[in-house]
Amino acid sequence: MNRKTLVHQIFQKRSYLCIGLDPERDKLPPHLLKEKDPVFEFNKQIIDATHDICVAYKPNTAFYECDGIAGWQSLEKTKAHIPADIFSIADAKRGDIGNTSKMYAKAFFETLHFDALTIAPYMGSDSVKPFLNYEDKWAIVLGLTSNEGSSDFQKMTFQNNALYEEVITKVSSWGTPDNIMFVVGATRAEDFSHIRTLIPNHFLLVPGIGAQGGDLDAVSTHGLIKDAGLLVNSSRGIIYAGKGIDFAKEARKEALKINEVMKRHLDQLDK
Amino acid sequence: MNRKTLVHQIFQKRSYLCIGLDPERDKLPPHLLKEKDPVFEFNKQIIDATHDICVAYKPNTAFYECDGIAGWQSLEKTKAHIPADIFSIADAKRGDIGNTSKMYAKAFFETLHFDALTIAPYMGSDSVKPFLNYEDKWAIVLGLTSNEGSSDFQKMTFQNNALYEEVITKVSSWGTPDNIMFVVGATRAEDFSHIRTLIPNHFLLVPGIGAQGGDLDAVSTHGLIKDAGLLVNSSRGIIYAGKGIDFAKEARKEALKINEVMKRHLDQLDK
Repeated sequence: MNRKTLVHQIFQKRSYLCIGLDPERDKLPPHLLKEKDPVFEFNKQIIDATHDICVAYKPNTAFYECDGIAGWQSLEKTKAHIPADIFSIADAKRGDIGNTSKMYAKAFFETLHFDALTIAPYMGSDSVKPFLNYEDKWAIVLGLTSNEGSSDFQKMTFQNNALYEEVITKVSSWGTPDNIMFVVGATRAEDFSHIRTLIPNHFLLVPGIGAQGGDLDAVSTHGLIKDAGLLVNSSRGIIYAGKGIDFAKEARKEALKINEVMKRHLDQLDK
Repeated sequence: MNRKTLVHQIFQKRSYLCIGLDPERDKLPPHLLKEKDPVFEFNKQIIDATHDICVAYKPNTAFYECDGIAGWQSLEKTKAHIPADIFSIADAKRGDIGNTSKMYAKAFFETLHFDALTIAPYMGSDSVKPFLNYEDKWAIVLGLTSNEGSSDFQKMTFQNNALYEEVITKVSSWGTPDNIMFVVGATRAEDFSHIRTLIPNHFLLVPGIGAQGGDLDAVSTHGLIKDAGLLVNSSRGIIYAGKGIDFAKEARKEALKINEVMKRHLDQLDK
């Protein structure tokens, strides 16, 4: 999916919500466990209940790989069930030497047909560049993450710059705002304005709303640009909103709450 | 597998060779392509021909994921075919927030039964620690890699230390030499002595021998410690040594050449 189409979806739906499809077996509604593929059934109902009110889905591969082959079957079925007009992100955080990254690009862009893949930058340019050779596909590179350990290395300072700033600056020079996005954690809203000075035009994928405690209002105020340039993800806060037969309905309700805030911010942008 | 058993294998076989099982479809011997699962058949023959002369196998997940579900089937069958007394490494370079890393640990340690998993350190402590909660399992964390892009970030200097030095020092404090190893690229043999001052007791997994041009002699001279503490990997140089019906025999020949050098260095250690 190209940027124009993504932006169109955002302004049409009045939302920049990405829903993280991270199904943990022991958090699934109990009535689903009798299904042949509870993970897919769970995702299917979440997607059916929310696809008109979000612009992206982001399955994290860990929650599928833990089930081995059965998990990859659930992932493939889940991907196939995501409507083609919704941006699909494989949250896989891959990154390897050039010839190996090519194989990952094949796995996620050609075999599974995702629009985007998250990438870990530690191994440098040849670990990122193979993902930039696909038209209308995206590399979403870890910049500043929202977890506890993000301060271990990402915030270390080189001369005057933190590692994450060096990563964002250097990686952005390898591609364009049409094929690279960055992961920027929502728990550090104070960093958003600063990051916007480094990459005024790139889309940011923001995890950390909900379970990780990010502040949607602050992120939106400091992160939004003229054509939005934000995808804000919520996983657990939405998908585990309910545990009963109506879990998907409850998920939709939570998504709508987030969308109220997003709509308000997008309305502001239009002014 | 615990350290004692691994070291015993190394001194018994007079080898610290790890064979990378990275099967690319278009590099497989043509006669295998008619098999139902050419990738597994290829790996099976390589393993059958070399398991008595190496101490570890390291499938890189990218070369399986590119085939989707079929690829994960090949990976699972390959893992099951690796003899239990050989150290098995999933070269997956995973790394995510804590609850997600737990799922990756489950995927590779419980579902696939690997002894070790390679891990990317960018996301910090909670991305590494979940892998340290398993007895006799190993986190092999990227320190200094052997690819072109390794200089982009890993060699950046903070005050007096390069990022990779900070990574090695900090990560090693999260576990012990009995559950953490580091990836150190063989193309930079000049860095080995220095790294040994930082982590005198940790095992190092060294890629880059063969196709990536590393120097086995230099790596061995500067990297070996009393109980070896080295696993040196070769992938393409061994597995693609031949393209005919006897490809596995050719692979064995290449492995034996490497082992001659390794035997010499281990003999030196014994003195």
